[in-house]
Amino acid sequence: MAEGSDDIQALIALLGRLPGLGPRSARRIVLHLIRKRSGQMSQLAQLLDSVAVNSRECLTCGNITDRDECAICTDPARASGEICVVEDVADLWALERGHVFRGRYHVLGGTLSALDEIGPEDLGIPALVDRVTREGVSEVILALNATVDGQTTAHYIADALDSSGITVTGLAQGVPIGGELDYLDDGTISAALRARRKL
Amino acid sequence: MAEGSDDIQALIALLGRLPGLGPRSARRIVLHLIRKRSGQMSQLAQLLDSVAVNSRECLTCGNITDRDECAICTDPARASGEICVVEDVADLWALERGHVFRGRYHVLGGTLSALDEIGPEDLGIPALVDRVTREGVSEVILALNATVDGQTTAHYIADALDSSGITVTGLAQGVPIGGELDYLDDGTISAALRARRKL
Repeated sequence: MAEGSDDIQALIALLGRLPGLGPRSARRIVLHLIRKRSGQMSQLAQLLDSVAVNSRECLTCGNITDRDECAICTDPARASGEICVVEDVADLWALERGHVFRGRYHVLGGTLSALDEIGPEDLGIPALVDRVTREGVSEVILALNATVDGQTTAHYIADALDSSGITVTGLAQGVPIGGELDYLDDGTISAALRARRKL
Repeated sequence: MAEGSDDIQALIALLGRLPGLGPRSARRIVLHLIRKRSGQMSQLAQLLDSVAVNSRECLTCGNITDRDECAICTDPARASGEICVVEDVADLWALERGHVFRGRYHVLGGTLSALDEIGPEDLGIPALVDRVTREGVSEVILALNATVDGQTTAHYIADALDSSGITVTGLAQGVPIGGELDYLDDGTISAALRARRKL
């Protein structure tokens, strides 16, 4: 039992299985927390417990929240008639950090995948079509990843909304801000060239 | 409040300040824990709390333990008359993973440093000399880092033990196992050459 106590070893093992961490970084974190005993470890334990107990999915959009409906869905200033569809809560958070979009979201929780047997029902796409029609939405922005699965899902949703007359848009594709052409993949350069715009 | 709730934001902020983590990896970990709600988060909270409450320094060697004396100091099979002096608990854990050393340890908790005003008393070097004489130790192995501060501290301890007649040794320096000469720094190659041995 090199690492102090059974609890310390169990803690290192558990932390080491988190995404982006391994046994080495887990050990470093545990030692850091033990050394800084100024309550940081107890505070972390309390927060983890509170989040584990309280967090759930927003009933309307699927965002993570500690109430029935998330802060975005209940914010009257955001009832703009625009719904942004994302694959994942992480994508929703990323868009929110941009402070540009002022509408509401819809989290799919994945992409269509024949291989993994994930169909439209599993992602709640019929529910999305219902919601969009019910709320009188004017524009649906498909902010899905620029991967094959993401784009397949985007096309499926666009088709499903085709008869509703609602504007369906997707994110622009091109050179990222600060991006150097020399380091970009050929696909991105081609897409940016095809979608070139007048200055 | 993009990230779900105040607690989630506080948790991300706290995790993001841990060594090796930043806001991005902290967000990833929190989302992972919320998704896998199969008790992993509560388990982590309980372990953190238990370790925060129970862990303390071994009264004899300074290792981290949940009792007064650590498992190494209380193991009768390890009373070998050898004491290995390390800077830090992380170094002790690293040596234990090697499964070679079967004696006991002494954790200094740092190195001598004129700049940071860390003197021999701050590191408990007089207490180490006392312990070594009292326990009738035959060999003190100085497993300090191969840095300027580490080697200065090693020299100081060797001097302090000079009159006791105890054998004082240091770790061998040379080419690491699996190391390629082409990628090693000049200092290591020179040290390995000077300390060459007959095959």
